[in-house]
Amino acid sequence: MDALYTIYIQTAEQMQMLDITGEVQRLAADSQTVSGICTLFVPHTTAGLLISENRDPYLAGDFFRAFGQLAGDAGNYRSLENNFLAFLFAGLVGVSQTIPVENGRLALGAWQSIYLMEFDGDRRRKVRVKFMEDK
Amino acid sequence: MDALYTIYIQTAEQMQMLDITGEVQRLAADSQTVSGICTLFVPHTTAGLLISENRDPYLAGDFFRAFGQLAGDAGNYRSLENNFLAFLFAGLVGVSQTIPVENGRLALGAWQSIYLMEFDGDRRRKVRVKFMEDK
Amino acid sequence: MDALYTIYIQTAEQMQMLDITGEVQRLAADSQTVSGICTLFVPHTTAGLLISENRDPYLAGDFFRAFGQLAGDAGNYRSLENNFLAFLFAGLVGVSQTIPVENGRLALGAWQSIYLMEFDGDRRRKVRVKFMEDK
Repeated sequence: MDALYTIYIQTAEQMQMLDITGEVQRLAADSQTVSGICTLFVPHTTAGLLISENRDPYLAGDFFRAFGQLAGDAGNYRSLENNFLAFLFAGLVGVSQTIPVENGRLALGAWQSIYLMEFDGDRRRKVRVKFMEDK
Repeated sequence: MDALYTIYIQTAEQMQMLDITGEVQRLAADSQTVSGICTLFVPHTTAGLLISENRDPYLAGDFFRAFGQLAGDAGNYRSLENNFLAFLFAGLVGVSQTIPVENGRLALGAWQSIYLMEFDGDRRRKVRVKFMEDK
Repeated sequence: MDALYTIYIQTAEQMQMLDITGEVQRLAADSQTVSGICTLFVPHTTAGLLISENRDPYLAGDFFRAFGQLAGDAGNYRSLENNFLAFLFAGLVGVSQTIPVENGRLALGAWQSIYLMEFDGDRRRKVRVKFMEDK
């Protein structure tokens, strides 16, 4: 049955990478979607979604280091609340991802996890999770 | 009813960030989609789609400044028409976004707008807008 | 009829940009989707999907040059298998794309191709291709 859910997440740090894969797989089961798609959407401007490696303890540090390096000096930017870097990083990873659902589960690779990327925490965040079943 | 629309936009500058949220919400109403998804797609190679902050007058300038800084010297690149930076920026933000539709409206956050990102204007641009309703 | 396919691709180089558009259009025909959407998904952490220009012989070189430049020195990063740059580049282009299907074909622009982006080859890769037809 087509369904739209909301995951609520309290982040703890300014920049944080939170694995939400287990919760999304649980919602796939709850929705009883056997075959179809799952669209994930973050309704925030300073957080995003990334699908990446799930077993490397250095991954989050490396991502935030890389983003900081490509953005250069925060003093170059003029956005009103001094949080442009969070807008930039959210824009680079994106706020929307769509994944096939197969045999009742998201068709992720063995090494993939879905991450909520917090770029301006700590905050209370939402991730919308939409399932569309085959006809 | 599932429907596919085209928004036509004449851009005015070489790099420009145009808010198309109102038009997409109007199409959601026109399509009579109550609950489902909306896929936006830009059929161009030097423009993209970004979902970001909707009330910061410095946002566009900061985004174009950041992209320019991360790309480095345009002279490093060899693409045929000297517009590689437009290909790069379109690749970084992407040409496709999918957003849940709930109660007849796109489930955007309060601070989110959908932007057509022009990276090689001025040109006449299209955005395809596809609605898929729940079964 | 809604359908989920897998394209198998053997990459040959460490970084490579492979045009899969023809194969995806062939699957659209095979699925008999007339009007709907196509979701592409890469179930890997060191490869991605990019929709970009289809007739510029310098494009791949320019993309890999740009990514190398924005990432800075690989020695800055600590991921376990020394392949963080592949995770970063996959995260920047993304592993998922959704494209409208119209009159039995993907609604790509005349200059657009769909590329599998290999960032850590050579490897055997999969691309999942999901079609959802209008009701």
